[in-house]
Amino acid sequence: MATFSRTRKIRFAHTDAAGIAFYPRYFGMMNDFIEDWFGDGLGFDFKHLHIDEKRAVPTVHIEADFIGAGRMHDELTFALTVTKIGRSSVHLRIRATSGGEDRFRMTFVIAHMAMETGKSLPWPDDMRAAMEKWLAPEGENS
Amino acid sequence: MATFSRTRKIRFAHTDAAGIAFYPRYFGMMNDFIEDWFGDGLGFDFKHLHIDEKRAVPTVHIEADFIGAGRMHDELTFALTVTKIGRSSVHLRIRATSGGEDRFRMTFVIAHMAMETGKSLPWPDDMRAAMEKWLAPEGENS
Amino acid sequence: MATFSRTRKIRFAHTDAAGIAFYPRYFGMMNDFIEDWFGDGLGFDFKHLHIDEKRAVPTVHIEADFIGAGRMHDELTFALTVTKIGRSSVHLRIRATSGGEDRFRMTFVIAHMAMETGKSLPWPDDMRAAMEKWLAPEGENS
Amino acid sequence: MATFSRTRKIRFAHTDAAGIAFYPRYFGMMNDFIEDWFGDGLGFDFKHLHIDEKRAVPTVHIEADFIGAGRMHDELTFALTVTKIGRSSVHLRIRATSGGEDRFRMTFVIAHMAMETGKSLPWPDDMRAAMEKWLAPEGENS
Repeated sequence: MATFSRTRKIRFAHTDAAGIAFYPRYFGMMNDFIEDWFGDGLGFDFKHLHIDEKRAVPTVHIEADFIGAGRMHDELTFALTVTKIGRSSVHLRIRATSGGEDRFRMTFVIAHMAMETGKSLPWPDDMRAAMEKWLAPEGENS
Repeated sequence: MATFSRTRKIRFAHTDAAGIAFYPRYFGMMNDFIEDWFGDGLGFDFKHLHIDEKRAVPTVHIEADFIGAGRMHDELTFALTVTKIGRSSVHLRIRATSGGEDRFRMTFVIAHMAMETGKSLPWPDDMRAAMEKWLAPEGENS
Repeated sequence: MATFSRTRKIRFAHTDAAGIAFYPRYFGMMNDFIEDWFGDGLGFDFKHLHIDEKRAVPTVHIEADFIGAGRMHDELTFALTVTKIGRSSVHLRIRATSGGEDRFRMTFVIAHMAMETGKSLPWPDDMRAAMEKWLAPEGENS
Repeated sequence: MATFSRTRKIRFAHTDAAGIAFYPRYFGMMNDFIEDWFGDGLGFDFKHLHIDEKRAVPTVHIEADFIGAGRMHDELTFALTVTKIGRSSVHLRIRATSGGEDRFRMTFVIAHMAMETGKSLPWPDDMRAAMEKWLAPEGENS
């Protein structure tokens, strides 16, 4: 099973007055992580996509379960698999752990559209093929 | 049906290179909004809760549907109802509209715990009673 | 002396693990405040400027003195005066207080340029005239 | 001359509707960078300092010159030197470049205090000695 992963350290800047990582900042981290997956995992650079090709990949649905508190300087490991590739959307499952313990699990549905018209665009064949490499095996698509 | 609502303007600081509101910043807005609901809607101030009483109200589950793009200087209206009050958790449904059009819908499950032990705490009776005022009517709790 | 002012509450989302407002978030607040000054104080809306006219007003210089810690739910009052109007730049002095006590003082130098070329643009006469209304009196321009 | 440096990529999450890095986010990056300097450059971990020893290192003064716009996926190199070590403060000079071109220059004055009393604390000898390794040579302290 192909899993795209990255690690990231929880910083002072991510914390709040409760002394733990403030959850809205996890979504900023997730955007960076998905940006890395597009660039390094798929070979389709976010900058090229947005600036040169005027295509956007907006997040249309998120589910998130926050399991354990993130503490300053915890090393988080993010692991991503694809659970479904639609005509112009893709479903991702992301797990964040630290030292083997769960921190959060999220699912993202990301759409593909033309930036100027806001109309959905089918994935080009090469992008679809690149995504298939990260598909979770059958039976794990929930 | 009691709905707690607030309006907020999308700022330059909320936008990204795609020219629209960057969704991770919506979660920061939601935290401010829920903070207002605790203080103004329930009469239990976030500061008092966190600093004086060392109680935390962490978000444990989120579902979000992003329906329409937010543009700079759109006025967003957020409307909150309670869909379930558990022993030490509360379920919220939030709708964001602008000029009558949907922008996003979210559900939040918020827990109640002692900050130092991380153990869940049942809601005190006065807090539970305050929450009941914002309950959605039967049949709309989904 | 004409002073443009606004108030803003320090939120949970502005705090860090030291329990006080995290200073990088003050710069986000300052951007919102300067955005309000352009729109409400000068009558030149940030959205119109950026989106329709493709003009940008980048910050080119900042000096900041952080005097007192900001605590959750402090009401901050921001007061702005203009200290210098250049050909294609403007110098602003901002003071933030809470309950009459200083929190921070900042000076900003903001430039005026064409978004596409990055070349500086002289202020149009109407914008310059609007800025003059907020000029600090002689002898206070330091 | 000892210079502490790190690189960091400008992300989609750092951009604004003008398509360039939004300057308030540079201050968040600078906080991470100074956190790295404390931990990796000085050997005094931010977490240990804040959580275990209840000491804070608040920023009391900043000067910033923004020289060139930051674009998505630019690699920024940050270089830090110490220009002055006071009894309970330290002055830092930071230069950010990308591909050899200047992006911004900042100076920071950072204080050292007890978190609970807010009173300034002299640097311990070992911290002072660690800081001296990063001092800029004479004649460059401006």
